[in-house]
Amino acid sequence: MSNIRHALNIKREDDFAQWYQTVISEAELAEESGVRGCMVIKPWGYGIWERIQRLLDDRIKAAGHENVYFPIFIPLSNFEREADHVDGFAKEMAVVTHHRLIADGEGGLKPDPEAKLEEPLIVRPTSETIFGDAMARWIQSWRDLPLLTNQWANVVRWEMRTRMFLRTSEFLWQEGHTAHATDAEAKEHTLTMLEVYRACAEEDLALPVIAGEKPENERFPGAVETWSIEAMMQDGKALQAGTSHYLGTNFSEAAGIKFQDREGGEKFCHTTSWGVSTRMIGGVIMTHGDDDGLRVPPRIAPYQVVILPMLRDKPEDDALLEYCEVLRAKLAGQQTLGEPVRVLLDKKPGKAAAKRWDWVRKGAPIIIEVGGRDMDNGVVSLIRRDQLWNMESGKANFQTPSRDEAGETIPAMLGEIQQAIFDEAAARRDANIVRDIDTMDGLRAYYAEGQKAPGWVEVQWSKPTGPALEKVVEQLKELKLTVRNVPMDRPDADGTCIFTGEPAVERIYVAKAY
Amino acid sequence: MSNIRHALNIKREDDFAQWYQTVISEAELAEESGVRGCMVIKPWGYGIWERIQRLLDDRIKAAGHENVYFPIFIPLSNFEREADHVDGFAKEMAVVTHHRLIADGEGGLKPDPEAKLEEPLIVRPTSETIFGDAMARWIQSWRDLPLLTNQWANVVRWEMRTRMFLRTSEFLWQEGHTAHATDAEAKEHTLTMLEVYRACAEEDLALPVIAGEKPENERFPGAVETWSIEAMMQDGKALQAGTSHYLGTNFSEAAGIKFQDREGGEKFCHTTSWGVSTRMIGGVIMTHGDDDGLRVPPRIAPYQVVILPMLRDKPEDDALLEYCEVLRAKLAGQQTLGEPVRVLLDKKPGKAAAKRWDWVRKGAPIIIEVGGRDMDNGVVSLIRRDQLWNMESGKANFQTPSRDEAGETIPAMLGEIQQAIFDEAAARRDANIVRDIDTMDGLRAYYAEGQKAPGWVEVQWSKPTGPALEKVVEQLKELKLTVRNVPMDRPDADGTCIFTGEPAVERIYVAKAY
Ligand SMILES: [Zn+2]
Ligand SMILES: [Zn+2]
Repeated sequence: MSNIRHALNIKREDDFAQWYQTVISEAELAEESGVRGCMVIKPWGYGIWERIQRLLDDRIKAAGHENVYFPIFIPLSNFEREADHVDGFAKEMAVVTHHRLIADGEGGLKPDPEAKLEEPLIVRPTSETIFGDAMARWIQSWRDLPLLTNQWANVVRWEMRTRMFLRTSEFLWQEGHTAHATDAEAKEHTLTMLEVYRACAEEDLALPVIAGEKPENERFPGAVETWSIEAMMQDGKALQAGTSHYLGTNFSEAAGIKFQDREGGEKFCHTTSWGVSTRMIGGVIMTHGDDDGLRVPPRIAPYQVVILPMLRDKPEDDALLEYCEVLRAKLAGQQTLGEPVRVLLDKKPGKAAAKRWDWVRKGAPIIIEVGGRDMDNGVVSLIRRDQLWNMESGKANFQTPSRDEAGETIPAMLGEIQQAIFDEAAARRDANIVRDIDTMDGLRAYYAEGQKAPGWVEVQWSKPTGPALEKVVEQLKELKLTVRNVPMDRPDADGTCIFTGEPAVERIYVAKAY
Repeated sequence: MSNIRHALNIKREDDFAQWYQTVISEAELAEESGVRGCMVIKPWGYGIWERIQRLLDDRIKAAGHENVYFPIFIPLSNFEREADHVDGFAKEMAVVTHHRLIADGEGGLKPDPEAKLEEPLIVRPTSETIFGDAMARWIQSWRDLPLLTNQWANVVRWEMRTRMFLRTSEFLWQEGHTAHATDAEAKEHTLTMLEVYRACAEEDLALPVIAGEKPENERFPGAVETWSIEAMMQDGKALQAGTSHYLGTNFSEAAGIKFQDREGGEKFCHTTSWGVSTRMIGGVIMTHGDDDGLRVPPRIAPYQVVILPMLRDKPEDDALLEYCEVLRAKLAGQQTLGEPVRVLLDKKPGKAAAKRWDWVRKGAPIIIEVGGRDMDNGVVSLIRRDQLWNMESGKANFQTPSRDEAGETIPAMLGEIQQAIFDEAAARRDANIVRDIDTMDGLRAYYAEGQKAPGWVEVQWSKPTGPALEKVVEQLKELKLTVRNVPMDRPDADGTCIFTGEPAVERIYVAKAY
């Protein structure tokens, strides 16, 4: 509708990258910190992360894991051990070299040359090696297995080009590390955690994802298998939203993670690792955001319902607040999506209309305005964020249920919103996967068409390895494409490989990606 | 009882420091990581921290705060701004100077000289300055106040002599930072958070504490007032378990945190900050531990009840597990201390007796063993960790309620245990505070008596400042004592200062401290 005046000054279709930054700023999710590549996560953004943490942590614990905490610093020598071709090794990492600051004699401070560390410490980019050292200490016999651990932590990977939530020098994540007696059990656990991530993405974040195995060239260094969940953003690009790795005995051999089996023999453990990060919030923004800001899925919304009394700094305010408080209390006493309804009665100073648009941009699932007239009529004015506009009038799509009715229907309405935005994303994703391209020319033509959001293409391939795979990767790179994964839920291959012309072995998704 | 065979090989009275390390090791709370001054927090220790976090976070949010996340790195220049006498400045901090590792040409790795940072970054020892920068951006007018923020994070202070939980180079904490329009409101908020800490320590951790103001010499640098809660350990020493600072306009003037008041004038905000850390776990150990290991207060116990079936790797195990599962489910479906009962049915391989002692050392509040005979009799064998020994027999003090009775009485029993260990600690604390010393000679004599746990002494003083205070600090230092705080709940002074002989102004606690 051309007569709608959207809450953002930029549209997705005009400049998706700029729109993304605008949503982060206008929804008050995060901002630049002044420290290179690091962001400040603001209350609404951090509240979403806390919700994701809580729900995913419950799932991780239900799968039998215990949380632990390992040091932020990893000795440089751990990386020497890990880097099996040290000569070619060069990694962007934050290196701590000194342990004291002193005056520099010119009115400033400097690292104290007397306090140089004998061995530099690295701010953890991941904790594989230091978990491995502990597992070697903790595991003696088959009775200690499986060892199922997880850590919530900050990690640092020095990034030259950063983008809030998607690629920052410091980010927050969880990293699971497990050890098992057998190959089969470790592989099964890798898939168990992939399924945990799928469920969290789809059920909690309302992000439809494709779960599948990454091709050889996209494996985590040292992994035998790397699996991922991939989500489609509104610009058609793929976002890898979580990975689960089967590491074989590669890490246990490096760290000496051994156990005595039931027969008394000594064996290496089979290990796994898996992680998701604050990057998922980037996925939520690019999947559910619209030209009015963010839309937060109810399950991860810090507040699911925001009540805005139209206060006028007059004595009547008391009655209005009391009227609103009855609704707040009624909602807070009910459950939705398995938890108590999270409702805010927002009494902050400011005009209700301005506050309404603030909450629209932030993406609270339900926004309720209550003025004196509403109170007199025993009603409230309610907006569903996923049905913001009345398409006929071009105005905000207010419903005016009675206060009692609102108190009764909102819990179920939140469940509907959760489902509705998932369905919307899934329908868009499905509409933007093309499955009928079976030649490289066809692929080239499809991505050459200059479409804004060309989405993903499913092709069949012969699963080349080594140099043959490198050649495929090069061909795709020319089109700015990568192989996302080998989806688990698709029929067997029945054609020929579009890269090699050989009989196809499996289906893969190719796409542009974040 | 001399015939009791305790679960630890060391007693508190023999070597308290060594006993402390033994509990940490035997209760599997934490261990050295191999990285200087940093520990690995193991599942049971981290589980306790997660409980503390959850309960304290609820209290912090109930007091109106929102959580945020700030970068781990702070530019060196922020410390130059803060250090108002830079010439004498020397601080132990982890300094990041490079952002890349490369091969050193000798088979190892080294910081890349080409990747030296223009400005070194400091791993945050606290986030005062970087919060200050953000507050200056976020606050425009009185409508934005109060600004109530909190962060859960890891921080690093390079320590030369470390002790697990009490003093480690890296530790976990929360740091609250708030900004207010007026002096009075900020001061009130400082005390509100002190009360939150007192309630958390006493009600959640069962740590009786003394809340009071720190003397001038113990203030946080830049603070106008520093308040603390102080707990007495079993060796009589004090542990500062949390601090709350009123910062006046010192930080807001440095960072430019200004607001426009209702009359349109520009003013500096009054700020506060406050924090507690994993150090609290050290306080829990030294307050509630005994010669059999740790005793975790039920409110912060990851599991409050552990059920140990005496499995024999035989077909009868199934019936036994089913018998235990009925109790587990019955308990998990009930509430205690305001939350669902946390109960573990521990099916791990291993002899039940060995596992019993593992859980005794870990300090699970209630341990239940179930063997075939218990099942046949419809009972369970139950140990309250706070009443471990039968003093007459010198054996473990088993109760044998029927399974149904256990299912009904355990929730209330957990509440009793929470209260009992608090009462025990409070009685010991009260018995170890001396209030009748009114001369320096008396104080000297008291602490010279060579008692193992001489506890604290309450004295009256004239609240000296400047050089007079320094002299008092020196006098106390000779006795290895410090002023802990000025308790809030004691009668007004009515005597003379034991240090200066002047009329006393207030009462203070002096003690040895961690
Ligand atoms: Zn190699
Ligand atoms: Zn000065």
